[in-house]
Amino acid sequence: MPGLIINSTIARRNISRMAAKAKAGQVTFRPHFKTHQSTSIGEWFRGTGVSVITVSSVDMARHFAAAGWDDITIAIPAPLNELPVIDDLAGKIQLHLLVDSPEAVLGLARRLHNPVQVWIKIDVGYHRCGMLWYDTENIIDLARQIDQNRNLHFQGILTHAGHTYHQPDRAAVLDTHNSSVQRLIELQQEMQAAGLETKISIGDTPGCTVANDFRGIDEIRPGNFIFYDLMQLQLGVCQPEDIAVAVRCPVIGIYPKRGEIAVHCGAVHLSKEGLKTGDGSIIFGCLATPSPDGWTSAVWEAPVINLSQEHGIVRCSADQMNDIAIGDYVTILPVHSCLTVNNYPSYVTTDGQTIPKFQSIG
Amino acid sequence: MPGLIINSTIARRNISRMAAKAKAGQVTFRPHFKTHQSTSIGEWFRGTGVSVITVSSVDMARHFAAAGWDDITIAIPAPLNELPVIDDLAGKIQLHLLVDSPEAVLGLARRLHNPVQVWIKIDVGYHRCGMLWYDTENIIDLARQIDQNRNLHFQGILTHAGHTYHQPDRAAVLDTHNSSVQRLIELQQEMQAAGLETKISIGDTPGCTVANDFRGIDEIRPGNFIFYDLMQLQLGVCQPEDIAVAVRCPVIGIYPKRGEIAVHCGAVHLSKEGLKTGDGSIIFGCLATPSPDGWTSAVWEAPVINLSQEHGIVRCSADQMNDIAIGDYVTILPVHSCLTVNNYPSYVTTDGQTIPKFQSIG
Repeated sequence: MPGLIINSTIARRNISRMAAKAKAGQVTFRPHFKTHQSTSIGEWFRGTGVSVITVSSVDMARHFAAAGWDDITIAIPAPLNELPVIDDLAGKIQLHLLVDSPEAVLGLARRLHNPVQVWIKIDVGYHRCGMLWYDTENIIDLARQIDQNRNLHFQGILTHAGHTYHQPDRAAVLDTHNSSVQRLIELQQEMQAAGLETKISIGDTPGCTVANDFRGIDEIRPGNFIFYDLMQLQLGVCQPEDIAVAVRCPVIGIYPKRGEIAVHCGAVHLSKEGLKTGDGSIIFGCLATPSPDGWTSAVWEAPVINLSQEHGIVRCSADQMNDIAIGDYVTILPVHSCLTVNNYPSYVTTDGQTIPKFQSIG
Repeated sequence: MPGLIINSTIARRNISRMAAKAKAGQVTFRPHFKTHQSTSIGEWFRGTGVSVITVSSVDMARHFAAAGWDDITIAIPAPLNELPVIDDLAGKIQLHLLVDSPEAVLGLARRLHNPVQVWIKIDVGYHRCGMLWYDTENIIDLARQIDQNRNLHFQGILTHAGHTYHQPDRAAVLDTHNSSVQRLIELQQEMQAAGLETKISIGDTPGCTVANDFRGIDEIRPGNFIFYDLMQLQLGVCQPEDIAVAVRCPVIGIYPKRGEIAVHCGAVHLSKEGLKTGDGSIIFGCLATPSPDGWTSAVWEAPVINLSQEHGIVRCSADQMNDIAIGDYVTILPVHSCLTVNNYPSYVTTDGQTIPKFQSIG
């Protein structure tokens, strides 16, 4: 069966690097736990001094609260359909919520009996959720509306600059990151001028990895950096030796004339997230050979070019194919580690230890 | 939380239709259970007289064998890495395996102690797995190699003509289906002429749905037809009222200026399978309103245009947006029901009953 493998040396190094960078930059490090979803791996973070975290669902917040995390941000606009659970959680831990409309604030104000910390979600150009960064007057009004309620404590402005993922290279990622931060700082200045104490929280792995410093920022919430993946590699954000997870799967067919092998590793094992390569084709992963230090084979050389539910097709050179027999296991690096990892109930470390994890659904 | 809903009236009707078509066509109906992965739903099939099934992993075969299914085809090339489990299963039920190389036959012959039924997987143009349909001499040699082993019983030639999914419309699906079947029939004739008793098994939902008859075929193995989805709808293979599953999820943001809403329904709830629409854009689902008879809203009008891990963005008209408030639940039809369903541990019926299911991993 296909299995999720983790190189814990690499993952711990990725954690230490980001923790050290946050410390040097004097910002709160509130890592996003949606990527690894494991209380055991959470302890690796705790070991570097992390005490506050981010999650992406109420369910995930409950899971990590039960594991002793007592300061959690739920980084999707507060789901008003789950207010009873949110209220219960807010009675037990320091809970941070996101809002981007007066309706959401009203919903929280009316039905919460326990105090929560409230952030206004700002759209700095990604156009997923949030109020537009230049909608200053309405943002100030919303912050005031929040503070009028006994249980709602306005914290600041928060963004996920996910458009860093759509940039062609590392330099463009840095530009996007810098302009996003600049937009938040200008907004913050106007809010402070209006008498509103306002913190700034940012979130994306590309921006947090390439940023030279965190001046003007109070908090960072990256998640993916613990594992990185082919998407981050293509962006120029990480190196091949920084990728910390992969899928190990059996070869079920060898087709020398087509220059392809079939693996038992489909969309349910890798996710259907594709990556457009230089020649315009879409790939879903790449073969690589695990080693204690990372991956010995050149990444990109043997891409997964097709995925159905349980099958994957990998393009291989004749040399690569000569080393492979039906029934052998091969290792595939994922395009998007967050989605790949979410498919599994546990990790296996490169030395054979099982690390259980939570799954978003189920 | 997002949840998977099933309209059991529609699903049962889809099952009955295909069962009746198989009966009229005098072919064995061996439905693929990878789509629903539920022993409860398996019983709906049994109710129409189904006694033989298809699955896509050894794990799934064990699951359904434990639920009383005693004649199962594992429809991926036999994974030689799992031979001890396969052998154990072959001692308990009638097990059918697929091979497409002498190496695979050798692997089975050397290590199985219990009898299995063996099919040669044929590639009729999809180019995923299998021997090419015109590679007659090698196919005949492989069939003979199979029959030389006491525990391996050659059954016939089997294909999944998955290239029906890449056709522009229903007429092209039918053409592809007919030419695939023709290729198998010609191959069968050559094999029979060589003294090899050879059955024909075909598999895809588009082909099995649009086919006018099953002349020349011995067995059909469609799976997706129980639920259909937007991909099948776009192909012209089903009608909107034939789609039997959807995801129910909360609205977490409303953005009138962008004409978009955000839902708590991301790639982990729907899957990242995209569908290219007429204007070249990719969509990941569509809003629809469930009713006892199917879906009252026009499908396609409000597409899911973006998916991240937990967020979905839906494009809506002003009218649609007026009817929606933050915290409301909306219903989304999936692009590819097999992948969407795989994400969940259970279904909820439209009248609130929970139906547990298996998950491929976990």
